[in-house]
Amino acid sequence: MKFQPLPLLICLLTISPIFAQKHTHQSARPLAFPDVPGFKTLKTDLHQHTVFSDGNVWPTIRVMEALRDNLDVISLTEHIEYQPHKEDIPHPDRNRSYEIALQEAKDHDLLVVHGSEITRQAPMGHSNAIFIQDANKLLNDEAEDSFAEAKRQNAFVFWNHPAWHPQSPTGNPILSDFQKERIQNGELHGIEVINMGDYAEESLALALEHNLAIMGNSDIHGLIDWDYAEKGHDRPVTLVFAKEKTKESLKEALFAGRTVAVFNSLLVGKKENLVPLLQACIQVEKAQYINKTSILEVTMKNVSSSDLIFENQMPFTFYSSSPVFTVPAGETKTINIKTLERKDGLTLTLKALGAYVAPKVQPIVEWEIKVAE
Amino acid sequence: MKFQPLPLLICLLTISPIFAQKHTHQSARPLAFPDVPGFKTLKTDLHQHTVFSDGNVWPTIRVMEALRDNLDVISLTEHIEYQPHKEDIPHPDRNRSYEIALQEAKDHDLLVVHGSEITRQAPMGHSNAIFIQDANKLLNDEAEDSFAEAKRQNAFVFWNHPAWHPQSPTGNPILSDFQKERIQNGELHGIEVINMGDYAEESLALALEHNLAIMGNSDIHGLIDWDYAEKGHDRPVTLVFAKEKTKESLKEALFAGRTVAVFNSLLVGKKENLVPLLQACIQVEKAQYINKTSILEVTMKNVSSSDLIFENQMPFTFYSSSPVFTVPAGETKTINIKTLERKDGLTLTLKALGAYVAPKVQPIVEWEIKVAE
Amino acid sequence: MKFQPLPLLICLLTISPIFAQKHTHQSARPLAFPDVPGFKTLKTDLHQHTVFSDGNVWPTIRVMEALRDNLDVISLTEHIEYQPHKEDIPHPDRNRSYEIALQEAKDHDLLVVHGSEITRQAPMGHSNAIFIQDANKLLNDEAEDSFAEAKRQNAFVFWNHPAWHPQSPTGNPILSDFQKERIQNGELHGIEVINMGDYAEESLALALEHNLAIMGNSDIHGLIDWDYAEKGHDRPVTLVFAKEKTKESLKEALFAGRTVAVFNSLLVGKKENLVPLLQACIQVEKAQYINKTSILEVTMKNVSSSDLIFENQMPFTFYSSSPVFTVPAGETKTINIKTLERKDGLTLTLKALGAYVAPKVQPIVEWEIKVAE
Amino acid sequence: MKFQPLPLLICLLTISPIFAQKHTHQSARPLAFPDVPGFKTLKTDLHQHTVFSDGNVWPTIRVMEALRDNLDVISLTEHIEYQPHKEDIPHPDRNRSYEIALQEAKDHDLLVVHGSEITRQAPMGHSNAIFIQDANKLLNDEAEDSFAEAKRQNAFVFWNHPAWHPQSPTGNPILSDFQKERIQNGELHGIEVINMGDYAEESLALALEHNLAIMGNSDIHGLIDWDYAEKGHDRPVTLVFAKEKTKESLKEALFAGRTVAVFNSLLVGKKENLVPLLQACIQVEKAQYINKTSILEVTMKNVSSSDLIFENQMPFTFYSSSPVFTVPAGETKTINIKTLERKDGLTLTLKALGAYVAPKVQPIVEWEIKVAE
Repeated sequence: MKFQPLPLLICLLTISPIFAQKHTHQSARPLAFPDVPGFKTLKTDLHQHTVFSDGNVWPTIRVMEALRDNLDVISLTEHIEYQPHKEDIPHPDRNRSYEIALQEAKDHDLLVVHGSEITRQAPMGHSNAIFIQDANKLLNDEAEDSFAEAKRQNAFVFWNHPAWHPQSPTGNPILSDFQKERIQNGELHGIEVINMGDYAEESLALALEHNLAIMGNSDIHGLIDWDYAEKGHDRPVTLVFAKEKTKESLKEALFAGRTVAVFNSLLVGKKENLVPLLQACIQVEKAQYINKTSILEVTMKNVSSSDLIFENQMPFTFYSSSPVFTVPAGETKTINIKTLERKDGLTLTLKALGAYVAPKVQPIVEWEIKVAE
Repeated sequence: MKFQPLPLLICLLTISPIFAQKHTHQSARPLAFPDVPGFKTLKTDLHQHTVFSDGNVWPTIRVMEALRDNLDVISLTEHIEYQPHKEDIPHPDRNRSYEIALQEAKDHDLLVVHGSEITRQAPMGHSNAIFIQDANKLLNDEAEDSFAEAKRQNAFVFWNHPAWHPQSPTGNPILSDFQKERIQNGELHGIEVINMGDYAEESLALALEHNLAIMGNSDIHGLIDWDYAEKGHDRPVTLVFAKEKTKESLKEALFAGRTVAVFNSLLVGKKENLVPLLQACIQVEKAQYINKTSILEVTMKNVSSSDLIFENQMPFTFYSSSPVFTVPAGETKTINIKTLERKDGLTLTLKALGAYVAPKVQPIVEWEIKVAE
Repeated sequence: MKFQPLPLLICLLTISPIFAQKHTHQSARPLAFPDVPGFKTLKTDLHQHTVFSDGNVWPTIRVMEALRDNLDVISLTEHIEYQPHKEDIPHPDRNRSYEIALQEAKDHDLLVVHGSEITRQAPMGHSNAIFIQDANKLLNDEAEDSFAEAKRQNAFVFWNHPAWHPQSPTGNPILSDFQKERIQNGELHGIEVINMGDYAEESLALALEHNLAIMGNSDIHGLIDWDYAEKGHDRPVTLVFAKEKTKESLKEALFAGRTVAVFNSLLVGKKENLVPLLQACIQVEKAQYINKTSILEVTMKNVSSSDLIFENQMPFTFYSSSPVFTVPAGETKTINIKTLERKDGLTLTLKALGAYVAPKVQPIVEWEIKVAE
Repeated sequence: MKFQPLPLLICLLTISPIFAQKHTHQSARPLAFPDVPGFKTLKTDLHQHTVFSDGNVWPTIRVMEALRDNLDVISLTEHIEYQPHKEDIPHPDRNRSYEIALQEAKDHDLLVVHGSEITRQAPMGHSNAIFIQDANKLLNDEAEDSFAEAKRQNAFVFWNHPAWHPQSPTGNPILSDFQKERIQNGELHGIEVINMGDYAEESLALALEHNLAIMGNSDIHGLIDWDYAEKGHDRPVTLVFAKEKTKESLKEALFAGRTVAVFNSLLVGKKENLVPLLQACIQVEKAQYINKTSILEVTMKNVSSSDLIFENQMPFTFYSSSPVFTVPAGETKTINIKTLERKDGLTLTLKALGAYVAPKVQPIVEWEIKVAE
């Protein structure tokens, strides 16, 4: 029925008033993460595909999915070398996916970053270059030339799913001479420690050893709803702590490595990035002694969209809860701390069991609490 | 990450075992309608779009949506004249959408029927030709030529959303000389009385007056999940009562007008098609008198995916329920009929309030009940 | 653990802060019905049991259930003659249930009306007397004496479940000489047309013929949650249209017969009471023509807790919806009316399919709509 | 309406066929815990109140709640000294609550154990004696006499909520000379480490130090649904590992200290009891290498009703999941273990983060896995 060449979202808005609604089953859940001191927390998914490589949707769908998920930034990173739909989409310009998404997003508060995948067999593997100027120039016979061109375009480049088992049957990343050279040449700046639902501790080790930005992305080819939402998952994202919500700020932050990769209740990042995020995610709403006791009732709100699992690290035990407890996304949790004597303040000290600052190392987070009269 | 040119479903199956599942939020609900005496009830959606006209997904997504919804038949009916993605998809062959879907569906029990939309301004409006041989030949300057060609290809042709307000601001269908001629020439065989969520009683009147097959279709451009499932709706479908689940049987049944259009709890069809369907939808599981009373307890199961609303038409009243009651989709409902004396059998007689055999005319349906000892 | 003789609700509030909450599964749904012109709409359940007759809970639970369900009025109507817990609760004073509930309710906005059941075999059957002074005086060998005493106490008396099959195996009410005399003597003023989940059209006929107040009650013995909420039901209630929320006003309204009995989406009452209620339940939030069409988009909100089923009765048809449609409790529904030409106003005219003003007679309700520019 | 002195459940079954069901909102969730080698795992709640002390329901409700929760054993432990309903329930026999529950349970597979609370101010506090013969004899001026009498009746006695803040404002248990003497005299055999939602690590320490059975109970006064189910909680229980499902076996097991206290995902018990339980809760359904990789895919099913949180303790890392992961109650979870080379078998080794065998000490649990070809 739709016949006017309008942007998709406007069409849907036009249609909706005459579309009888039974009742709402919203499957998408908007992602939410608070800003941290000094920075905006940008929710980004920088690894996605459309019909312009081996994905199954037009770029407009990726924009709409991002808006539904409350993302701040996306990048469509087509395989420029792998074009299974070439018979029908023979367009020689590898920038088309970006251009269409940019047009669709133009009336929304969503940044679309120009990107491309550079795809090779092992040991080179797959990498994404973003903030590029022209994807066509990245299409070269030699992978080295593609990376060199990405550097010429001042791109931020990260290694995709280094632990991917079709390229490494142990499921561990293999840092080859190729990657070592790229890092030395300043041609590789980040690494996915989370890709789809897969987290590799060994990739985190590489990130820390080589000072690469820690990334997490959906690598979506089909639909976010089918691959993630419907299974009870949020899509993986890279949180980037940027001075402003602009492409320039985002780029600066990525090169500075101010990121945390997130998949559901798993948060992975350098300590200096992850601890302030966790501190901001939990807001202490109330701290008050129960009646005439020395039991301090502390009510915490998790303002993020990730369930957060904590373990008590204080010298004081709890009155009610287990020492291990979850504060569900968006919800409030009250713990009762037996301080033995009444105090004016307390340093709430918890280990974040679902968060990692290094392989097997979970951060201990502190919040200064002032007790209400 | 995905790099092998495998059919989409196989890829997803390959990925799933290594994809950690949180818990399932299946938004899709499989459609279900029972067979009727002598016929298979085929669930069809014969009006859909992809990137090959003004839709937003690759044809593979339409196949997967259909499998999720438990459809038996789909047709992708691109606007051959309206190609907003032409810059990127310049392919001159208008049959590509069909070919790709056919390939994707080949390992599944889903029929893909070759179709095309013939799109004009009023008074010609929009029509779909299905069971065509070559969509390219339908692309003509004159609409008359396109219909003539469809007839040459032995296509089944139906008028899309005749009440669409951009072509008829009263929201009523306008049967022009163009349509009258098409009907007279044997070039127009069906009419959408339901398109998207819109039902027009006046289109039903036209169907009955001109003996056109009664059709209901989704006309999907975006995603079924976003436009229907998420809002609590099932997609509209045309149920076709065919001798077998083959394209030939389907075609025979469509030309014979053996259809019912369905949208949620609204069912529209000729009486001879709709009444047997309703009879099959409700299965009487138990009929027994309560203790020493003359109150007959009748348990009915609705084996369809549509909630069915009924009103008692018997000379007997109910012990418990209101005379107007719903048997929800897939559920069981017990009514207690006060028969005043104990009987061996009863003709359960109900008006189906959500079903229409003519404008404002709801069918009365009967079930012969044998009372258990 | 609880040891202080505090009212139950206060205890629960005291405990809750130290009680770790996982997440909420509120099974109760507060009942909601709007006031009508000139009257407060009081939600009452005037037929309930506790351990003081054959119920299973202390009267305090009945108060808490009522608060959860948002009731305005309850009455605990113990069988004074039938005391299965007599061995343990030998208290000779039949007013204790009332006194305990009154004490529990004293800090809440809930009226507790003093009541009692008068219980006999057929043909006398069961009746409730409410607004009594002393239940003990209703305990007599002869039912006639009990009714006479109730009248002396200025009680409002109604016949309980007249169609109850253990007392009438056809499931139809039998109006005996006993009831006829009670009505003639001004000793019987109301009749349950709904008891538990049971609705009897024949009881409605008696109500209308003998000008008895139309009542609907839960007759709860166990728990409201188990018998109703958990099965997806609201408890049955009698809506009483009173000048104020006081016992005096309530009593005046009951004697005046200003009631509607409600069970889920079934509403039964005299036309003069039911039609204004339905008018108040549906609020037209918006009425505006779509673009340049003559299709009037009307958005209705159902502010009640009952799903309301309607059928179009206007000379105009709908653009989208079926002529039969539901406005779910608390939700909004948009219909599009094809008025053929643009109008300044319209009388929205719908038959309420789940409402009865007489056996098989559903009211037609009108709303005057002013069209927005 | 109900008038026959039938057991409550039979009444409800009688009513249900004539009670129209809308749809089910079952709030209760049956508890489930597997048997362990050599023992039946009995689900018990041995601390409950009714109207016979300061509870709010008749004992029959406690039986029905237990059946809904799938318990194996209950005990009604009324305060014999504290009788707030004495005015209405003056019965001098403190065994009535037990007798009524026993009668209600007689047709069900539920054991009712005769019990009573012995209630004093600090330092004696509250204790429960179960497997008693006559509650009346426990009613003495001196607490010492009550404990001595309980011993004479061969009762199993446990200290209730030793950390209860109205009796210990620090929220920590105070082991007084009174308790020390009771333990020395063989008059105190268990201790609640979980009461309502409250878990005290210090009570666990006392249990271990003095070899007391570890108990967890609901201490319900109101309704299980309102206090637990509706808030998303299961009621706390004591799992008892008994040779058979008989009162004798249960008693033997309690005196032997074979218990685990459970509240939602918190499990507390001695190592020898808790580890076999956790081993039984997780069933490995499948262990197979992915394609040609050395990544072992292990599918685990949690057959218990508690969500179980684990942390990887193996020298091998995971391919997909975080090292900390939850296997939700009744659900399946797949982890992928990177064993670096293909093996025939593996000892799956996980720390159970929500389980405690001593304060702050979580058990490490092992499962021997045989890899499928």
